[in-house]
Amino acid sequence: MYQGLKGFRELYPEEMAARRTVIDTVEGVARRHGFREVATPYLERAEMWTDKAGDEIVDELYAFTDKGDRLVTLTPELTPTVARMVVERQQALSKPIKWYSTRPFWRYEQVQQGRFREFYQCNVDTFGTADPRADAEIIAVAAEMLRELGVPAADFELRISHRDILGGVFAATGDGVDTEMAIRAVDRANKVEEAEYYRLLEDAGLDRDAAEQIDGLLAAGDLEAIGAFAQSDRVDAAIENLQAILAELERLGVRDACTIALDTARGLDYYTGVVFECFDPKGRVSRSVFGGGRYDELIEQFGGQPTPAVGFAPGVMNSTLPLLLQAVGVFPAETLRTDYYVLSAGESDQVRDVVGEIAGQLRALDQVVETDLTGRGFGSQMGYADTINAERVIIVGERDLADGAVTLKEMASGEQTQIPLSAFPPTEGPPTIDAYSD
Amino acid sequence: MYQGLKGFRELYPEEMAARRTVIDTVEGVARRHGFREVATPYLERAEMWTDKAGDEIVDELYAFTDKGDRLVTLTPELTPTVARMVVERQQALSKPIKWYSTRPFWRYEQVQQGRFREFYQCNVDTFGTADPRADAEIIAVAAEMLRELGVPAADFELRISHRDILGGVFAATGDGVDTEMAIRAVDRANKVEEAEYYRLLEDAGLDRDAAEQIDGLLAAGDLEAIGAFAQSDRVDAAIENLQAILAELERLGVRDACTIALDTARGLDYYTGVVFECFDPKGRVSRSVFGGGRYDELIEQFGGQPTPAVGFAPGVMNSTLPLLLQAVGVFPAETLRTDYYVLSAGESDQVRDVVGEIAGQLRALDQVVETDLTGRGFGSQMGYADTINAERVIIVGERDLADGAVTLKEMASGEQTQIPLSAFPPTEGPPTIDAYSD
Repeated sequence: MYQGLKGFRELYPEEMAARRTVIDTVEGVARRHGFREVATPYLERAEMWTDKAGDEIVDELYAFTDKGDRLVTLTPELTPTVARMVVERQQALSKPIKWYSTRPFWRYEQVQQGRFREFYQCNVDTFGTADPRADAEIIAVAAEMLRELGVPAADFELRISHRDILGGVFAATGDGVDTEMAIRAVDRANKVEEAEYYRLLEDAGLDRDAAEQIDGLLAAGDLEAIGAFAQSDRVDAAIENLQAILAELERLGVRDACTIALDTARGLDYYTGVVFECFDPKGRVSRSVFGGGRYDELIEQFGGQPTPAVGFAPGVMNSTLPLLLQAVGVFPAETLRTDYYVLSAGESDQVRDVVGEIAGQLRALDQVVETDLTGRGFGSQMGYADTINAERVIIVGERDLADGAVTLKEMASGEQTQIPLSAFPPTEGPPTIDAYSD
Repeated sequence: MYQGLKGFRELYPEEMAARRTVIDTVEGVARRHGFREVATPYLERAEMWTDKAGDEIVDELYAFTDKGDRLVTLTPELTPTVARMVVERQQALSKPIKWYSTRPFWRYEQVQQGRFREFYQCNVDTFGTADPRADAEIIAVAAEMLRELGVPAADFELRISHRDILGGVFAATGDGVDTEMAIRAVDRANKVEEAEYYRLLEDAGLDRDAAEQIDGLLAAGDLEAIGAFAQSDRVDAAIENLQAILAELERLGVRDACTIALDTARGLDYYTGVVFECFDPKGRVSRSVFGGGRYDELIEQFGGQPTPAVGFAPGVMNSTLPLLLQAVGVFPAETLRTDYYVLSAGESDQVRDVVGEIAGQLRALDQVVETDLTGRGFGSQMGYADTINAERVIIVGERDLADGAVTLKEMASGEQTQIPLSAFPPTEGPPTIDAYSD
């Protein structure tokens, strides 16, 4: 017997049903906000990653040499591909470009809870506008997704920060400070001991006093105090930008879901403006649930015209977002849904004709309908109807047919009643017991 | 600028919108028949293919050695993976097992019209029953898909055959006949000259007379005559099976869509019973549009209990099915769909507040809604609303707001009218001009 690969998962129908609900919800929010689905290749030239990150990155990729002697890789993320697509049709595409897609990505990394080698993300991105409304819309989409998934306000927090505030504050302390190193230290703040954190900041060129002062400023999140401390145009512009985003979040009705958390650094060389991460404030999910932000330089790095961009990418199948939903108790039920099982009580041509007709008529009403495909008896058909969670069973048998009727059974209550064959095809919608029992 | 790989395609929103409609339609039919979605890994151990087909098959695969020194491959088809999944939970799964999934597969082959190296299929399979009702349901699902995609009855044909009729007829001609070779000749009948076809049959051990006789029998499709010719239990059983399937297709209302075409061989070592292929009777698509059939031995070959199976897999993205839809003129329009664009006529806080509110209220009614994310003027917002195919524009401007109103414009007719702010949030469904113009 063959084994699947470690870090890869197959999902059986009940498991998939729950995840399909998550995906439908997440995509539905993106769609209603005017994001449009794109399809992207699963294999790309590896140079799209090695050119920027160096050849070492190949160790983390599912990269290989194809039969045309090209070094190719299973895509570990979507951004380089959509950047390429934007560049290819730069002139033709009307702006803003608002795209989403849900699909797997692959990274060769250690398998752990909520982290697989094959993982699914729904990427949501806006290209071609630097306006704070675009940042706010992305964050609002994130908040709406969580709400629609049923996560109560108290169970998630969108922590919002700004790369230029963080960078600007460090830059303001003097020329000797390595801003990138300092941001990297902030990024690690929650993962290391306090002493180690300050040592990293000192390595970046900050003395302990300055480090503590900045730390206090960031923790307080008082934008005015930060502006006064930094005294720099860069920080002032970033604060103004952040405030405009917050004002727009208010308009979009999701300001409550967001907190200013300037110590959220979110990676290093990628983001250029606002960044945000979704956290579980109750700590049941210890890592970031998902995150995103503005990355205005990427399209240019891929050979395009300067094109501002902002986006995020929640994991949807077996990642931290489902873990949060499970922790909160709102992960969709892993159950099948069946509207009708049309049961053949007997094998006569007449029974089978009526079963086929009724099943077709109900399916035409958009119902999920199963019938017997095995020739088995009444009891074992009823047992199967149970396993597929059939809401109603329509029993087609000789005796009822002689009365010009079939029997409808509601599976939850066990109630059943005869309904006349003249009720088919059903013109008032799918038949329920309420319409026929006295 | 980076190039995508040959044989791989990205799809922009308009292109994807059409294909999403195809996928939704195809999956909807499967779902209503009680097929359940599964998710499957995109990478598997290559031995799942090489064990059966030999090491040469690797030439046609995207196979490579991973960092754990395993020979792995991007999956070229779904069946071995679902076979593995069935085997893994053989006892726990209630029968019949009815699964579907839509996803890409990869083969390293020559790129041509309707054939890419990365291609999408919707696989639909039933495991665990050999009853003719299961075969008929699969064929009915195929027919319903085509109907729902809008293909008229005259524009597709499901050619139905049976491996045991074909095999049995050849076996009946004598011990000297190589049945497999003869079936292979039939499989190539449409691809080679007549003389070559008869030479292949002669190579298989049939003299010209017998070959012509069988050829005539197969072409006539008269099951009784074939039974009389073959005089074998195997052929009789196959004819009975095929007739039971046809009777059930009649019950399911799709018998008309099917023709008996006993010269449809469809591959060699895989299928064991009924086989079928969808063809364009008008020849605009020269190859088979898609096909399927019964394969009762596969699960056992993958180490499971003997488990009958039947299924098919239409291509859904860039394959022959979309080619047929295009030829027939029913391929969905490659256009975006937007319900409302809420236009900011001016940049005041009041305008922006109302834009945000109305957009949110319409989205809550499940409408696709876009708003300005760029701070541009009236004209260029209207131009954008056009490019996204907005059905209606709601114009929010200072002057209207002073009257306690906004303006609703129907984009198709150009008609517009004021509607009072008191109409928001809309309680009677999304606002239309009919409700407000005298």
